[in-house]
Amino acid sequence: MSSTWGNNLKLSLFGESHGKGIGIIIDGLPPGILLDFNHIRKQMQRRAPGKSDTSTKRKEKDSFEIISGLFKEKTTGTPLCGLIRNENTLSEDYEKMHNLMRPGHADYTGYIKYKGFNDFRGGGHFSGRLTAPLVFAGAVAMQVLQKKNIYIGSHISDICGVRDKSFDDISPDENLFRSLSEKEICTIDDEAGLKMKEKILITKTKNDSVGGIIETAVINIPPGVGSPFFNSIESQMSSMMFSIPAVKGIEFGSGFNLTNMKGSASNDSFTASNGKIVTLTNHNGGIQGGISNGMPIIFRTVFKATPSISKKQKTIDIDTMKETEIEIRGRHDPCIVPRAVPVTEAVSALVILDILMEKDGI
Amino acid sequence: MSSTWGNNLKLSLFGESHGKGIGIIIDGLPPGILLDFNHIRKQMQRRAPGKSDTSTKRKEKDSFEIISGLFKEKTTGTPLCGLIRNENTLSEDYEKMHNLMRPGHADYTGYIKYKGFNDFRGGGHFSGRLTAPLVFAGAVAMQVLQKKNIYIGSHISDICGVRDKSFDDISPDENLFRSLSEKEICTIDDEAGLKMKEKILITKTKNDSVGGIIETAVINIPPGVGSPFFNSIESQMSSMMFSIPAVKGIEFGSGFNLTNMKGSASNDSFTASNGKIVTLTNHNGGIQGGISNGMPIIFRTVFKATPSISKKQKTIDIDTMKETEIEIRGRHDPCIVPRAVPVTEAVSALVILDILMEKDGI
Amino acid sequence: MSSTWGNNLKLSLFGESHGKGIGIIIDGLPPGILLDFNHIRKQMQRRAPGKSDTSTKRKEKDSFEIISGLFKEKTTGTPLCGLIRNENTLSEDYEKMHNLMRPGHADYTGYIKYKGFNDFRGGGHFSGRLTAPLVFAGAVAMQVLQKKNIYIGSHISDICGVRDKSFDDISPDENLFRSLSEKEICTIDDEAGLKMKEKILITKTKNDSVGGIIETAVINIPPGVGSPFFNSIESQMSSMMFSIPAVKGIEFGSGFNLTNMKGSASNDSFTASNGKIVTLTNHNGGIQGGISNGMPIIFRTVFKATPSISKKQKTIDIDTMKETEIEIRGRHDPCIVPRAVPVTEAVSALVILDILMEKDGI
Amino acid sequence: MSSTWGNNLKLSLFGESHGKGIGIIIDGLPPGILLDFNHIRKQMQRRAPGKSDTSTKRKEKDSFEIISGLFKEKTTGTPLCGLIRNENTLSEDYEKMHNLMRPGHADYTGYIKYKGFNDFRGGGHFSGRLTAPLVFAGAVAMQVLQKKNIYIGSHISDICGVRDKSFDDISPDENLFRSLSEKEICTIDDEAGLKMKEKILITKTKNDSVGGIIETAVINIPPGVGSPFFNSIESQMSSMMFSIPAVKGIEFGSGFNLTNMKGSASNDSFTASNGKIVTLTNHNGGIQGGISNGMPIIFRTVFKATPSISKKQKTIDIDTMKETEIEIRGRHDPCIVPRAVPVTEAVSALVILDILMEKDGI
Repeated sequence: MSSTWGNNLKLSLFGESHGKGIGIIIDGLPPGILLDFNHIRKQMQRRAPGKSDTSTKRKEKDSFEIISGLFKEKTTGTPLCGLIRNENTLSEDYEKMHNLMRPGHADYTGYIKYKGFNDFRGGGHFSGRLTAPLVFAGAVAMQVLQKKNIYIGSHISDICGVRDKSFDDISPDENLFRSLSEKEICTIDDEAGLKMKEKILITKTKNDSVGGIIETAVINIPPGVGSPFFNSIESQMSSMMFSIPAVKGIEFGSGFNLTNMKGSASNDSFTASNGKIVTLTNHNGGIQGGISNGMPIIFRTVFKATPSISKKQKTIDIDTMKETEIEIRGRHDPCIVPRAVPVTEAVSALVILDILMEKDGI
Repeated sequence: MSSTWGNNLKLSLFGESHGKGIGIIIDGLPPGILLDFNHIRKQMQRRAPGKSDTSTKRKEKDSFEIISGLFKEKTTGTPLCGLIRNENTLSEDYEKMHNLMRPGHADYTGYIKYKGFNDFRGGGHFSGRLTAPLVFAGAVAMQVLQKKNIYIGSHISDICGVRDKSFDDISPDENLFRSLSEKEICTIDDEAGLKMKEKILITKTKNDSVGGIIETAVINIPPGVGSPFFNSIESQMSSMMFSIPAVKGIEFGSGFNLTNMKGSASNDSFTASNGKIVTLTNHNGGIQGGISNGMPIIFRTVFKATPSISKKQKTIDIDTMKETEIEIRGRHDPCIVPRAVPVTEAVSALVILDILMEKDGI
Repeated sequence: MSSTWGNNLKLSLFGESHGKGIGIIIDGLPPGILLDFNHIRKQMQRRAPGKSDTSTKRKEKDSFEIISGLFKEKTTGTPLCGLIRNENTLSEDYEKMHNLMRPGHADYTGYIKYKGFNDFRGGGHFSGRLTAPLVFAGAVAMQVLQKKNIYIGSHISDICGVRDKSFDDISPDENLFRSLSEKEICTIDDEAGLKMKEKILITKTKNDSVGGIIETAVINIPPGVGSPFFNSIESQMSSMMFSIPAVKGIEFGSGFNLTNMKGSASNDSFTASNGKIVTLTNHNGGIQGGISNGMPIIFRTVFKATPSISKKQKTIDIDTMKETEIEIRGRHDPCIVPRAVPVTEAVSALVILDILMEKDGI
Repeated sequence: MSSTWGNNLKLSLFGESHGKGIGIIIDGLPPGILLDFNHIRKQMQRRAPGKSDTSTKRKEKDSFEIISGLFKEKTTGTPLCGLIRNENTLSEDYEKMHNLMRPGHADYTGYIKYKGFNDFRGGGHFSGRLTAPLVFAGAVAMQVLQKKNIYIGSHISDICGVRDKSFDDISPDENLFRSLSEKEICTIDDEAGLKMKEKILITKTKNDSVGGIIETAVINIPPGVGSPFFNSIESQMSSMMFSIPAVKGIEFGSGFNLTNMKGSASNDSFTASNGKIVTLTNHNGGIQGGISNGMPIIFRTVFKATPSISKKQKTIDIDTMKETEIEIRGRHDPCIVPRAVPVTEAVSALVILDILMEKDGI
């Protein structure tokens, strides 16, 4: 029941980090979409490790094969299956220490849920590697959204207290999103990016890791999309965002700062601009009563620090139930946040497409 | 598609604030649960307005009738329908100003989505009044959970910068939850509660409103419950929490503060205690890889300030598309947070019961 | 999990035969539909008992109240709840013999599933009375479909070997459906109807009951609606038809007779007629690969004989686990089929509307 | 929305007949099931073409690869993906005549639904070849069911009026199912099988095809499993059976013959046998009120004749909208029914496992 998602668009995610492969099925895509493979590859490259000092040196080619749902380069409307074969896996270490529950990982919770039968190598089905098919699927969804003039972009908002500008301060547009997508450290303000990189590299030298906050904006979504209560845009977006490993919080519009704001400040007053209704501020993040109001949908997600660190940590040997210590070797990310930026964009695209299909059909 | 929820337990929420009534259907309850009506009434009273200076003086009896699913005082296992008749509604004002979109409300987004046919009186289906059936349903779910020794409690964590202690600082238990549930301003530290009340009353005199943060804990949930990815506990809990009107953010464990924490700090090391595996800290809020680890599940939700304020606000007349001003009269809450505390507990109970049923069946 | 249905339109059915009431929630209706209450009442009257020699003399007013989702006589687009209060129930007999499992009923299976806690009076949630809210909901769906020029009609095809003409022999249209809906025994050929009535009345004098077959046609549905595999029109229609108590079979087009037909006969050849593609025959019942081909969708459902008969029957006392005999008194239908005709139309309308919404959105 | 199924177990079916491959994801399997690959291969061999005079000579190796969800030969509990690569496809003919809508196929309905973008080669996603992954998934489900002592078997009940004995006449058990599974023409009575084969071979010489009826039994399912109304066993089983291409009808127990039976005959009286409650007859096919009563679940499905025949047929050229003729060459089955027998068993296993999981959890 864990890996199937969606009301109109249906996703099925499968695979383990060190198994034969990972992949995703997208059911419910409109037929006749000419897929831009370069765009898909570019998004996947943004997520791929091994390109920067701030990420693991482990290489993952992540070359995908489309098994079904594509005919003469266009979507058929029937389920599209994208498959990524696993390569370059080093499983030996995992075999040796599979009884040692890595702190911060899902080793222990997975062990209990799956009664010890889960594939523990590299985190198995829990691996961050499973975000590769999500980026693949999201890239496909983005191409459908772009035909409706809807664009999605993310930037790193905060790492260790180093803050970037906010989408609230500027008027995010397609061009900004494109320029952001080409940066190594994806910030609006390049100086903030440099400082973040410094923080990450210092942390790396200390055999430690660090988390951060990503801000995402969806622009040009028409008003009146979404639902009250259980299928509110916030409900659906948060549900999907928490599917990304390491996400521990999400806030829309002014979010947690709303505890410090009076109603007279946080109510977004309406005004008319070129015959269109807009709000003067956007403290509600483009959503009221679970439904879009036509303003940019803006939200922030927080990622915890990569749990794999080479420092010694206390843990439990699940076989003996005794306390012990663990030192995790291998090639890990000192900070997952830069690679998570395209993941947040991808899953946002999937959510927005699903919600639009409720209103418009296929 | 908006008002049906759940994988195993199914909820259907219905009604409008000034219509004939509101209610909920709960499908999938285990049969044979002897319902404690006093407990249900008590939970509903905690949410009901009119009992305190900090809430609206509007009275809502919220007396519920169970239409189905109950036989000889016990649940039958077939759908249980709880109905609450509307009374004491003053709809005239709404008729007069239904063309004026109230800032911060769902008037405009509802108008667009439903093409002008939605019941605008008192917010219609978007009304916070719809949380009454959620509290009803949650009280039923709590009674099922208590048989499994699972308890849920919430307190106000922050209003306008006044902070209560955190569940992280103490070891929350059933007794604390019971004592919290009897307070007017539901705080662990009574002094913090007094200061919060002061903040609310000052805001009220200024014809304004204020928001706040609620912290919730679920205790005694066994490890291994939940799922990776789309049905992670965080995904399901957040999806439901954002169904509560005015919620704009949620964070689990150390949440947004994780941007300031190194992996060596945020990884919760394992240890053994009385033959049970526990973590030394709980920065992950009891959840790893979407699955419970046996520690308390702890999260915070932020509520924006009540959008209904009697100050003049800029807005739009939807009939003329011209700018105008609005002054909202009536009996409104200067702060919705104290009344939202039992709502967060109720919907948490529904989520936890649904997740447990995946593992255990009916 | 039993009483919630639908992919786009969502139904929640609730209630027990002798409880406080029964009802249904319809979520996902388009807003702005002016409801014709006379049409709804007429459909419910067709299902209601007590109007004819061929049905039980028990009267059920079945007056419904719309609790939500209606504003100024039009649908709001938010969940519409229809409630029917129970009246005229005689529960005493059921109390006395609740330990005797009535053959052909769900007494025993319900007892096991719900561990003895189900409401046994009048069949409880399993009662045929629960088809009243289905007819209510179906009447609402029909009004939406009629705006798309889609019409649905049913007639009794066979009772005890007395056969009516088939929709295949004629070209069913809206006028035929209207005239059928006004008949006591709903047959195309009135003589067949008279003979069926005779069969029913003879059976009644013998304290026995009889079943029959109903044929249904959906006309003017555009081609290209539906899905391959799990959401085929046949899958969705059959799933809903088997929700009607007493249905034990369904066949589309030439159905079970296809075992006697060669491919050259059962393949429906294509031809063009007024610039439209049609088939020369309709052995596939308007559906190919799970998707509509523009021809009438035609299917037949078989209803078993009413299980309540006043003849003595062997059974088990569930308290003692001993064999015993049962004589069911009360006011029962010698044949449920005439009253089931509007039920088949109603649930067909719900299925067709749900399938159309997948394609067209809300 | 077409190719995702299930409440507890989730299936995602993908692929096209002449694309890169076909496959299925099964999400929600219990962990720790040691998979018997020989059993899976045997089931797939029973479905595979090319082994008999009564089926197409086209060979399909149908060798499957398990991409995920398996570790050390046991299920992990995470999504299991089975992939079958396509080979031995002859696509040229399809390119040439893709504008000619084959009667009895989904060419026309698929063309309209997918706006001409569907893969038309070999029927694309509509191909009967997609039943191979269903047989794969069903074989896995059967292995889970066998641990609960639940067995499923099918036989050919009728082809062209040649009838086999019924499961109602005998007491079906595991041994009968095993012996049936080894026959070329899967009948209880071998003489009936021979006559059926003769009918098929005669039809083949006439360049025509023929359909038939398959009867299925599920034994040892405990009482109390299933649900009233929308999730009745009949609803779920029929929904899945109509997902098999060519199925046009289903009946449970005495099915359509119930129109000829009085209530006193069709009510299955209860008796006690070895401390267990059983029914003296099984006209309800083991299901009452949508819930199992502990008797064998028995139903029959009708398959229409293979639509691909080499006789000339009238049709339409979709490009010119003009009438024309079509002659379908290639290697087709004169009768699909013998190969469909393991498909009915496989999908029954999936439905039964899903229903059991509702009650028992994972």
